[in-house]
Amino acid sequence: MSRISCTIAGLLSLLVVCVPSIAEEGMWLLNQLPREQLQERYGFEPGDDWIRHVQRSCVRISSGGSASFVSGNGLLMTNHHVASDIIADLSDEKNNYVRDGFYARTHGDELKCPKAELSILMTIEQVTDQVTADVTPEMSPAEALAAKKMAMSRIEKEARDRTGLMPEIVELYHGARYDLYLYKRYTDVRLVFAPELGIAFFGGDLDNFEYPRYCLDVAFLRAYEDGKPARTENFLKWSANGARDGELVFIAGHPGRTQRLFTVEHLEFLRDVRAPLMLNAYNQREVALLQFMGRSEEYRRIANEDLLGIQNGRKAYNGILEGLLDEQLMGIKRQAQDKLVDFIQAEPGRQAKYGDAHRRLAEAIEATRADYPAYFLLANRRASLCRLYSIALRLVQAAQEKAKPDGERLDEFRDANLPSLEIDLFSTAPIYDALEQFRLSDGLVRLGRVLGGGHPAVKAALGGVDAQGRATVLLAGCKLKDVEYRRKLYEGGSTAIAESEDSMIRFARQMEPIIRELRKRYEDQYESVEKEVYGKIAAALFEMQGDKVYPDATFTLRLAYGTIAGYEEPGRSVEAMTTFRGLYKLATRRDNQPPYELPKRWQERKDKLDLSLPFNFVCTNDIIGGNSGSPIFNKNAEVVGIVFDGNIHGLIWDFQFDMKRARAVGVHSRAITEALEKVYDAGPLVSEILGR
Amino acid sequence: MSRISCTIAGLLSLLVVCVPSIAEEGMWLLNQLPREQLQERYGFEPGDDWIRHVQRSCVRISSGGSASFVSGNGLLMTNHHVASDIIADLSDEKNNYVRDGFYARTHGDELKCPKAELSILMTIEQVTDQVTADVTPEMSPAEALAAKKMAMSRIEKEARDRTGLMPEIVELYHGARYDLYLYKRYTDVRLVFAPELGIAFFGGDLDNFEYPRYCLDVAFLRAYEDGKPARTENFLKWSANGARDGELVFIAGHPGRTQRLFTVEHLEFLRDVRAPLMLNAYNQREVALLQFMGRSEEYRRIANEDLLGIQNGRKAYNGILEGLLDEQLMGIKRQAQDKLVDFIQAEPGRQAKYGDAHRRLAEAIEATRADYPAYFLLANRRASLCRLYSIALRLVQAAQEKAKPDGERLDEFRDANLPSLEIDLFSTAPIYDALEQFRLSDGLVRLGRVLGGGHPAVKAALGGVDAQGRATVLLAGCKLKDVEYRRKLYEGGSTAIAESEDSMIRFARQMEPIIRELRKRYEDQYESVEKEVYGKIAAALFEMQGDKVYPDATFTLRLAYGTIAGYEEPGRSVEAMTTFRGLYKLATRRDNQPPYELPKRWQERKDKLDLSLPFNFVCTNDIIGGNSGSPIFNKNAEVVGIVFDGNIHGLIWDFQFDMKRARAVGVHSRAITEALEKVYDAGPLVSEILGR
Repeated sequence: MSRISCTIAGLLSLLVVCVPSIAEEGMWLLNQLPREQLQERYGFEPGDDWIRHVQRSCVRISSGGSASFVSGNGLLMTNHHVASDIIADLSDEKNNYVRDGFYARTHGDELKCPKAELSILMTIEQVTDQVTADVTPEMSPAEALAAKKMAMSRIEKEARDRTGLMPEIVELYHGARYDLYLYKRYTDVRLVFAPELGIAFFGGDLDNFEYPRYCLDVAFLRAYEDGKPARTENFLKWSANGARDGELVFIAGHPGRTQRLFTVEHLEFLRDVRAPLMLNAYNQREVALLQFMGRSEEYRRIANEDLLGIQNGRKAYNGILEGLLDEQLMGIKRQAQDKLVDFIQAEPGRQAKYGDAHRRLAEAIEATRADYPAYFLLANRRASLCRLYSIALRLVQAAQEKAKPDGERLDEFRDANLPSLEIDLFSTAPIYDALEQFRLSDGLVRLGRVLGGGHPAVKAALGGVDAQGRATVLLAGCKLKDVEYRRKLYEGGSTAIAESEDSMIRFARQMEPIIRELRKRYEDQYESVEKEVYGKIAAALFEMQGDKVYPDATFTLRLAYGTIAGYEEPGRSVEAMTTFRGLYKLATRRDNQPPYELPKRWQERKDKLDLSLPFNFVCTNDIIGGNSGSPIFNKNAEVVGIVFDGNIHGLIWDFQFDMKRARAVGVHSRAITEALEKVYDAGPLVSEILGR
Repeated sequence: MSRISCTIAGLLSLLVVCVPSIAEEGMWLLNQLPREQLQERYGFEPGDDWIRHVQRSCVRISSGGSASFVSGNGLLMTNHHVASDIIADLSDEKNNYVRDGFYARTHGDELKCPKAELSILMTIEQVTDQVTADVTPEMSPAEALAAKKMAMSRIEKEARDRTGLMPEIVELYHGARYDLYLYKRYTDVRLVFAPELGIAFFGGDLDNFEYPRYCLDVAFLRAYEDGKPARTENFLKWSANGARDGELVFIAGHPGRTQRLFTVEHLEFLRDVRAPLMLNAYNQREVALLQFMGRSEEYRRIANEDLLGIQNGRKAYNGILEGLLDEQLMGIKRQAQDKLVDFIQAEPGRQAKYGDAHRRLAEAIEATRADYPAYFLLANRRASLCRLYSIALRLVQAAQEKAKPDGERLDEFRDANLPSLEIDLFSTAPIYDALEQFRLSDGLVRLGRVLGGGHPAVKAALGGVDAQGRATVLLAGCKLKDVEYRRKLYEGGSTAIAESEDSMIRFARQMEPIIRELRKRYEDQYESVEKEVYGKIAAALFEMQGDKVYPDATFTLRLAYGTIAGYEEPGRSVEAMTTFRGLYKLATRRDNQPPYELPKRWQERKDKLDLSLPFNFVCTNDIIGGNSGSPIFNKNAEVVGIVFDGNIHGLIWDFQFDMKRARAVGVHSRAITEALEKVYDAGPLVSEILGR
């Protein structure tokens, strides 16, 4: 990360908050593409048909990634690392498909995933006015938020009834704008092809976020409808030869979350509180997991998904933190903010409308600071102690929430979100006793380590004994591995929950009020203010810059454009493309030892491959985590590759775009078909992709 | 750690603070042995000669471990893991003695260590009255501390002039008592024998602190005097057959630090502030180091010492933290404290003398809490960013401190401690550029991560740029790898330091006032109060219990007694001894894969070994970190083994003894000679040990 600052220094004069003065910055909304810019810079203006076709060819995977349809028979392509939790759920002690790969020669061989949800964005409607209709100036931020939630609930229900599609109201610009997205949904998803982890993640954690790279990070799934391969009208055709250096390419996918609109005070909170908390947890979990996995080959298998996720998050947040600690980089954000504040202060009308925004957000951040670690570890939606605890807690919460009117519920229990909740809750994906014991005792100690042994939540969680003993007892008395028992509790509502003697349900009942209180305080003190304030900041920004501002990422469909291009580092030029030859050279240089050990099949088939073909490449398109699995395509909407990573310089893209050396990293389309044919003998799959 | 609470629950009624009601608790001072107890329980009372012989046979290794002389020619035995930094300093890219082992067949082959210091305790004098002579009741804690330091400086100087030995005033019971220890010192130390890391640390981090174990964690060094092997009058003879299950055994060594006298509030500070800080740093450094080491075999070698130290500390502190989070265990401490407080309150005289002690300590802890992370990361004596920074900082500090009267200096710059400082400062041990770059940039980010980017110390450390860039610049302009340049700066004092253009010296000059201020505040607000208060608490305890209280460990010589004994765990009995046969079985079961990969020599020589011989064993003696390398010997002062670890249940020994399942772990004496003869063909070494 060291040299980004030099790069950035030169950009100081150019930048304004989130307004893409840098050539290829921008994660654009499909209904607000920068058509003029594209026309001006590349002589290409996407038409409505092109946009709709791309939009409906793209797939969101609910577990957190992107994909695209690549045939009319529901075949979709994503990354191995996006599908790997699915692949792991299909594996067992005898069939380790993550490690060894998988290929279904016929539809009959395709394996049905125990828990998968695909969403295809069909239409977008602007609903800001409806969402905010009941909000009055007298309302407190919390009241305003409640009013919006009630409205959203109505809008979603109406849309669902009207279209049969799955509605999602997307909050853009942190609350300045609301769009209604309607999705077609597939829940019968089957595994078609996955390579070995050793080639999908060649170089492992060491080479993660690095470049040059040599990874076949790709997997193929198939959407089914009524037990048959889905007929998918919109899909991306394959570019037989892929793209060349310098060519314009597009990426359409689901960037998860960026913080580019964040105020300086908000970034400082990220730097001083949130990122350290995350890294603290990541580092500790990684170390503990490595110990756990060392105990046996089977432990290594069952914990592998956890490890990959943790290592990825740790490396990403390290990069983000290093960027946030760089005063030169923060100086850019500070300068842009000063410019906006000056603009607001320069005119009494603007001052009245937006003048208190930055101050109020800073105050809300201060107010939430002390509580934040407990909120983060216990009450944020992704907080978990172990899988069975998560299930128990959601069952306890569901019983409470479902008894309320839709608009008053916690978000994840709103009617629109129940189908996703139920998929997760009733998944038959395996739950491993040893891993649960490890996760729970480790999680309990983590609570104590971060919050202190005297914290009421820690005392409640530990129950007056040691963590290991507590975990043993809680798991011994838990029957939630039985999916039917979960279903009974879910359907039985409050009564069933209250009467349950299950140890984990009782534990969740004990923790739930603590969690509810933490979440309520967080929402009232902070989140409601955040939404209101960023609404104002975005509006001020529109006033200053026009509407050429893209919203921060929200794990919804965006389009980014750019070109395939290498970059310069001190002492070396990094070329845009790598080749199969480079892969074999690197494996040899590292004595074919993990994480540079080639799968046996790749060792044996070397002679069959055209070693001069491109393998991975980098491009300047603006992406972030969640974009993994996004198709990379040309002007003709033909697939030329698939995104699987960003380079190390791109980690700061979280809060600040840079295109001098930050790059998206993809697998070349030609490499995919070459490997499928020559290494995996997957001729039929290649034929389907190529439409021959 | 889970089941310790069950064990402990049964002990609740028995325990009082630090008074060994449990059979074999106690790290006894050599001049205050529990002779009656030993006589009563084992019918053995050590005489003065026995004690003096043992005392002078034991060796302290300044880098942090124990050893013992085992021949009259200066041969000493310690652990491989205690000597491994020495062995690493002697290694290079071609000769990796840590990994591959070493054996000098003749004195001429013995390798001279670039940095080593051995101390043998010759005499002990009680000097409490002299140390406290100038302290008056009107003095503030800080003034009292200063007065004591002046007195100590005088006493040490007088002792050095009188005896020529190295004086050390040892503060016992956290300040209730002061003893003057006089040491004979050796600085010419040579490596005689080390096994391969693979057998010394068989099972690696996974099996560290676990049992059953199979480690040949032993190394032999030799003390030289005037260029010749030292004549060592006192040494421990070897027990040909070692000890049997149930036998009384002694351990004499240098336990580093315990917290058994700590008040509950102090333990809570350890639990909620200090242990989390340490674990946060350990976990993050471990993860980062593993990435660094993955880049090449040479990086793996040069960073291996750092890794082993970090992993060991991480596992130890995890165990301590888990214990501190166990409310049942803390309940024991609370009960003992209540008993003492009741005793103090029961009588007006005691109330006047000791009544404010617990409250004042609690207040001092609160006062230091906010500053503690910065103190811990920057100003505590072991805090470092990289080796060259440590050198630079100590040079800058030395220039300042040496200009002051001895009694006013920071401890490590007192005349009595300068010889040790100089050994370290002018060591020719290798310093690796890549490792320094890694340590420094990693350390700078760690500062920001823990203290926040807005902290003045962090801003000063980063200097307004990114961590990687800052580290690159600081190291590029640093000439301190040149030992002669260090010596010039050291001898040149303030002028030389002020005039130096060296980038690291300039950086250290910039950091030094921040560090001085942190340390001063810590000493004034906290440390001086701690010493005074624990003096009172210990005195109250003496009044309540008589003098059968042993002081917390201070990395000075102690004797512990116990028996060789297995223990029970839920579902299994753990036998006291393991065998060579067990070693080979385990290696086979783990497919001879790291960390269970046997060195080639051990694979080849299997048939030569008597596989039924004992390899490792456990005993009930009370030890802690720092005891590593301590001899285990019988009533006749014959070596029956060497301590190298405690089991996982023993991690809580830091603050609470338990003997139901907590154990010291040692290598059996018979295993050492068997391996030396049959695996390493080290007949001459065996002959020297056996005195044949």
